[in-house]
Amino acid sequence: MHAIHTDAASHPLLHHYQRVRQHSLQLAAPLSDEDCGAQSMPDASPVKWHLAHTTWFFETFILETLEHGFAPFHPAFRVLFNSYYNGIGDKHPRAQRGLLTRPGMAQVRAYRADVDARMARLLEAGLAPAQQQQLATLLTLGLEHEQQHQELLLTDVKHLLAQSALFPAYLEAPAARAVAAPAGKGGWIAFDGGLSEIGYAGDGFCFDNELPRHQQFVAPFELASSLVTNGEYLAFIDAGGYRNASLWLAEGWDWVRSQGLACPLYWRQDDAGNWLEFTLHGLQPLDPELPASHLSLFEADAYAHWAGARLPTEAEWELAAHGVPLQCGQLHPAAAVSGAGLRQMFGHCWQWTSSSYAPYPGYRTAPGALGEYNGKFMLNQYVLRGSSCATPAGHARASYRNFFPAGARWQFTGLRLAREVD
Amino acid sequence: MHAIHTDAASHPLLHHYQRVRQHSLQLAAPLSDEDCGAQSMPDASPVKWHLAHTTWFFETFILETLEHGFAPFHPAFRVLFNSYYNGIGDKHPRAQRGLLTRPGMAQVRAYRADVDARMARLLEAGLAPAQQQQLATLLTLGLEHEQQHQELLLTDVKHLLAQSALFPAYLEAPAARAVAAPAGKGGWIAFDGGLSEIGYAGDGFCFDNELPRHQQFVAPFELASSLVTNGEYLAFIDAGGYRNASLWLAEGWDWVRSQGLACPLYWRQDDAGNWLEFTLHGLQPLDPELPASHLSLFEADAYAHWAGARLPTEAEWELAAHGVPLQCGQLHPAAAVSGAGLRQMFGHCWQWTSSSYAPYPGYRTAPGALGEYNGKFMLNQYVLRGSSCATPAGHARASYRNFFPAGARWQFTGLRLAREVD
Amino acid sequence: MHAIHTDAASHPLLHHYQRVRQHSLQLAAPLSDEDCGAQSMPDASPVKWHLAHTTWFFETFILETLEHGFAPFHPAFRVLFNSYYNGIGDKHPRAQRGLLTRPGMAQVRAYRADVDARMARLLEAGLAPAQQQQLATLLTLGLEHEQQHQELLLTDVKHLLAQSALFPAYLEAPAARAVAAPAGKGGWIAFDGGLSEIGYAGDGFCFDNELPRHQQFVAPFELASSLVTNGEYLAFIDAGGYRNASLWLAEGWDWVRSQGLACPLYWRQDDAGNWLEFTLHGLQPLDPELPASHLSLFEADAYAHWAGARLPTEAEWELAAHGVPLQCGQLHPAAAVSGAGLRQMFGHCWQWTSSSYAPYPGYRTAPGALGEYNGKFMLNQYVLRGSSCATPAGHARASYRNFFPAGARWQFTGLRLAREVD
Amino acid sequence: MHAIHTDAASHPLLHHYQRVRQHSLQLAAPLSDEDCGAQSMPDASPVKWHLAHTTWFFETFILETLEHGFAPFHPAFRVLFNSYYNGIGDKHPRAQRGLLTRPGMAQVRAYRADVDARMARLLEAGLAPAQQQQLATLLTLGLEHEQQHQELLLTDVKHLLAQSALFPAYLEAPAARAVAAPAGKGGWIAFDGGLSEIGYAGDGFCFDNELPRHQQFVAPFELASSLVTNGEYLAFIDAGGYRNASLWLAEGWDWVRSQGLACPLYWRQDDAGNWLEFTLHGLQPLDPELPASHLSLFEADAYAHWAGARLPTEAEWELAAHGVPLQCGQLHPAAAVSGAGLRQMFGHCWQWTSSSYAPYPGYRTAPGALGEYNGKFMLNQYVLRGSSCATPAGHARASYRNFFPAGARWQFTGLRLAREVD
Repeated sequence: MHAIHTDAASHPLLHHYQRVRQHSLQLAAPLSDEDCGAQSMPDASPVKWHLAHTTWFFETFILETLEHGFAPFHPAFRVLFNSYYNGIGDKHPRAQRGLLTRPGMAQVRAYRADVDARMARLLEAGLAPAQQQQLATLLTLGLEHEQQHQELLLTDVKHLLAQSALFPAYLEAPAARAVAAPAGKGGWIAFDGGLSEIGYAGDGFCFDNELPRHQQFVAPFELASSLVTNGEYLAFIDAGGYRNASLWLAEGWDWVRSQGLACPLYWRQDDAGNWLEFTLHGLQPLDPELPASHLSLFEADAYAHWAGARLPTEAEWELAAHGVPLQCGQLHPAAAVSGAGLRQMFGHCWQWTSSSYAPYPGYRTAPGALGEYNGKFMLNQYVLRGSSCATPAGHARASYRNFFPAGARWQFTGLRLAREVD
Repeated sequence: MHAIHTDAASHPLLHHYQRVRQHSLQLAAPLSDEDCGAQSMPDASPVKWHLAHTTWFFETFILETLEHGFAPFHPAFRVLFNSYYNGIGDKHPRAQRGLLTRPGMAQVRAYRADVDARMARLLEAGLAPAQQQQLATLLTLGLEHEQQHQELLLTDVKHLLAQSALFPAYLEAPAARAVAAPAGKGGWIAFDGGLSEIGYAGDGFCFDNELPRHQQFVAPFELASSLVTNGEYLAFIDAGGYRNASLWLAEGWDWVRSQGLACPLYWRQDDAGNWLEFTLHGLQPLDPELPASHLSLFEADAYAHWAGARLPTEAEWELAAHGVPLQCGQLHPAAAVSGAGLRQMFGHCWQWTSSSYAPYPGYRTAPGALGEYNGKFMLNQYVLRGSSCATPAGHARASYRNFFPAGARWQFTGLRLAREVD
Repeated sequence: MHAIHTDAASHPLLHHYQRVRQHSLQLAAPLSDEDCGAQSMPDASPVKWHLAHTTWFFETFILETLEHGFAPFHPAFRVLFNSYYNGIGDKHPRAQRGLLTRPGMAQVRAYRADVDARMARLLEAGLAPAQQQQLATLLTLGLEHEQQHQELLLTDVKHLLAQSALFPAYLEAPAARAVAAPAGKGGWIAFDGGLSEIGYAGDGFCFDNELPRHQQFVAPFELASSLVTNGEYLAFIDAGGYRNASLWLAEGWDWVRSQGLACPLYWRQDDAGNWLEFTLHGLQPLDPELPASHLSLFEADAYAHWAGARLPTEAEWELAAHGVPLQCGQLHPAAAVSGAGLRQMFGHCWQWTSSSYAPYPGYRTAPGALGEYNGKFMLNQYVLRGSSCATPAGHARASYRNFFPAGARWQFTGLRLAREVD
Repeated sequence: MHAIHTDAASHPLLHHYQRVRQHSLQLAAPLSDEDCGAQSMPDASPVKWHLAHTTWFFETFILETLEHGFAPFHPAFRVLFNSYYNGIGDKHPRAQRGLLTRPGMAQVRAYRADVDARMARLLEAGLAPAQQQQLATLLTLGLEHEQQHQELLLTDVKHLLAQSALFPAYLEAPAARAVAAPAGKGGWIAFDGGLSEIGYAGDGFCFDNELPRHQQFVAPFELASSLVTNGEYLAFIDAGGYRNASLWLAEGWDWVRSQGLACPLYWRQDDAGNWLEFTLHGLQPLDPELPASHLSLFEADAYAHWAGARLPTEAEWELAAHGVPLQCGQLHPAAAVSGAGLRQMFGHCWQWTSSSYAPYPGYRTAPGALGEYNGKFMLNQYVLRGSSCATPAGHARASYRNFFPAGARWQFTGLRLAREVD
């Protein structure tokens, strides 16, 4: 990252900025420029687009407001790399992001370097206190935003590579898989429920959809101590789960039938009947001890139905998660695993809840285009809690609300069962 | 209804059965056999199909179980008039119900008469007490089911007639419209909220989705005393509501744009710019005092946003409705209107809530095919509360949960605003 | 047909008019009003619509021009029953003809009677000679047009009835099938070809697409003496014809695969493996001696490929047909069959040719809206020659050009093989 | 191109092979690897795919048969780069060619080099005479095939670049446009017609669809001496051509309306109302003297209708072209223009004819997978004659039959008018 001469270590915010920004480039490092340009479906974006859009976010929401003598890096980028902010203006059509061969990766790298240099100058320069606070707030949001795209970058590139008959690996598999040791089937953990507070409480960063903290009444419930595993999910398949309408939501059954589905997204069966799973390390034998991943809500709900259980609500999940240390999964092998009680709350798979993504009572969107960040998507999506192996370290927390439509399964999405107290 | 010689008055359940069944035929009376056969869209069904399917419900779920020497009226009807019960077996494709010219209306009337006669014999005959209870439970469910289809029959036939360039009336308009007197703009009614019980409580009939009654915490809130009117909604249109992305949910904005929408479903503007509304009495001048109807949740939400308010949750609505007498709208002109406080809770328009249609904590579906009645639809739909001008008398209650997808607007669906307490 | 007091026998054109018009009503006679209103697919029209549109043709193209004091029977009918004449103005959407429950069949019958009475008055009244000629020309076109719709009425109602699980018969089957005796497999008939004249020659009626008669050079060729039979087509199926890509045109193979096709449109196989065919007399055992019918051009071409032959060109077919007496099929059992040489040229199935539907050299369309009758459809359609069992007596001739897209198969369409001379 | 040590000049076939192969790489030279990977629509292919598929053709149809000890460069390429040959086996889905980021351009270049080296060895080695002949035949076909893809490579990359808001140039525009001098409006050239021979005659290469040469009778006709120009086409637009249904084929009118079209594919109007055209040199002012290009058959036919003329048949065009020297357009500026009579027959735009793409009488496909080269596409496509500015030198001839569906317009397709002799 040329042209930044500052002593970042002496400026913690700048230091954090540079570390997060650098991480995005590291994620793209194993990929060719050609890999970075392709878009495998409208829901996914090219890696290059992620790299440019996150940069656009800083340029549009910070530099355009606070930089003296602001001039855009390229006037067309305002449209090309706008995702969904109607308040900003026109947008390049989402389904055609893979056609943006210009600018090339080299130019997008230059765009990143240029914005990074201007951001460094802005951070180092003196601003009026009010602006300084605004800058810190927006910069933090921009970095959390970039971390969200870091996870999407990985899920999107996995989906792209999965389209290839060559089943290429994003990364070579490590010599030994640094995976959480098998969990010893866990059983159920009981929670008392009651009138509780839900939503972010603290003075760090959170997204607006985690606010306001508010009261909810939750009846007593039990959560499974660990995630449903591949082996358990395979038993559901072998029991005819994908052929039994009575297990599925009506829309889920239509989805299964119209697409002819019979297993999770990345599972394959070879000619000998062995199950394989496409991973970021290429095609691998299915490990029955690992959490089942890339499940849609439809599949998670049908499995729960079959198992005589149900999905947790997001309030149940959050109550249970209070006090659980943040854990990490296979892409962050250094992380420890909580030794007792609830396991795999963080760092393995996002966990579907039965809760529709909706505003908390008293929710307010920000003024202006940033008000489009979360609020306008609060319909026909369902909340996932926890975090996944692809979530950047430090990004998740107990009150974090991820959300996707019920049929989405290209994310690292799995399942923790819940049930009533008998 | 030939062949029923019993003294129905002496058998209250049979009397109720005959009254509800007769009402379905009365609703079809203004229509030709040709009107009764057509299907204007996959979401709607032909009148004839409603008449047959409600009969199939009694034949399949009661006679097949309890009638001695059961033989179906016609073996093919089991498939032709099955709506969505996978547990019963095959189904005629939903989008092709309008192609069922055979059986004709005459044969469907004969089907109704035959099942009615057999039901009368069953009700009059002695059954073992356990079976007697089962019969009463299923019969009540069948009649509530038929009442639901009575409302759908009206909304579906309205949608069909609206496709015609002739804009035919289902019924001639009454000499004077027996409509609730204009309401005197109402203002807001405040509610305390708190930890409350929600769901059906009583010993009458309710649907399984109203159970179990359970606790919810509700923050203080305010509800508008009356429904948003046509005149108020017109102000939203005139203010550019359909052209302002910032007012809409993301999915709603896509919906508006892709369909080129600029007003509610049945509104038309004549060459002179006057607004008209297609009604069951044909095309009429738009009455600014009447509640705005046939709104999608997208439109209701955008209006609320524009008005600085929001949709109520279903818990808020239900808390407010406790103690409100059931009211009726223009199709039931005899009904009185509550004189004070909340108005138009029942009998005018179903009222969109922001609540996703989801199972109550501890919800259990019935065993067998009847378990498909409600539970499998609890996804990507939103709850409406109250009742409409097309709801049969006696069908609604405060805990009743109607539900439709966010884009549906061929039902009599309107809007009551809510807001936080300042 | 009330209100026509004339002595039609003394007025041959009126007599012909009344006979053709009456025949349309006779074709509708076995059907209920409900049958007459439904539309099974966008390519087909309801019987009622055929009855009204053919009437609209006389009202719009004759009465509107020549009737003194013309007033339309109903002003909305000009739009409702316009098929595709942009020159006339707006059109009711083609795919929604089945939603026209108003006007009902009774009103459409009244429309026919009214136009018939006005046409009779016009024919009996004196007109100036130029107008008299114009009237005769338009009236003949109108009747030929109605005969085309008589055939479509039968194919469309067959398609509608085939959607029903009841497989109802349009007509009860005759006691003994009055079908042309099996033909004794025919072999090939050789033709010399050469520089020949093609197109209508005579002073009777023909459609504009049969003109001008013009020269074409045709190389020597051979035609099969009879149509491919059900039994022969079954051998193609049994030989894996529907699973062998090399037999099919590229677009045909896509069509077979995307729709999962394995036999002609109306064939069914029962649980015991016996082949049945849905006919206007209901579901019948497949008769191996009858001509294979309801084939798409894709299927006809693949069969020919498999049989080592090809489709004829329309010029070859027409050359061969000169001098062949018009024959009739099973719906016209009185008709005789030509005893020698070419058989089944008329009255059984329309016969696909390899000729794209294109204008003859020097082709001119009529001025005004009637110019839209044929010319604008001369693209991406293929010519069929002969006539079918559903073609009204007297309608076909050797130069007649029927045409449909390559994937159409709800018409009575079959196959006569051709080949080069060795 | 490493590893080819031979003296190509002494081996004319090898020399020709190397020149054609080299030209493909030259066409890709102005593009980045990212440009080469993207696919702008299912009908178009990535440049990289063209480079690989043409190589696959030599490997599959020549090396696999004739190379001693054949082993594929990569076993997966047999599927990845098969276009449409069912006889070869599975195919990567056509619409997903843009997702093949692996192999990258570097590997595809290596693939080309490897096959080129093996082809050189095969050509230099001795083969039995029968095999030698087979090799020469297949090699010539392979090179003609590659030349077809060279043109497609240019049209596909033009379509890709046109999707970008940056409107990038494939090549910088030359200092002065080396375009054929304006033609002096040409008028009509008359031809006698008569019984003529059509199809390839000679002992050079031709495609199977140009055979067999056969007799056709052609009536006297006239052809416009030059192509319709941008200026002439603009007059059609200004006269309301895109809003007048009576000018269009029915399917063309549906096409115009459903896509909201008002001008040719690459035309744009700036805010001041000036017309621009996107070209391989970027966005340029529309030159009224140049031939109108990128027209669909629908547009060509509507223009001809408006101009009181018609499209030529392919037989008319071919008769007229006999004896016309092959000319070249703007991408081949050195070419001369015929000084008298017919102009622009070659080297500017492919010229739509009214002839459906169909087999000539007696046409035979090759045995095996190569039989799929042309024959299976002879349906619902229309013949274009001549050649374009993007056609490689030496590829076209008077009997050459290009073909596309009527709505295609991303090729360099224009229009020469024809008419009857008065």
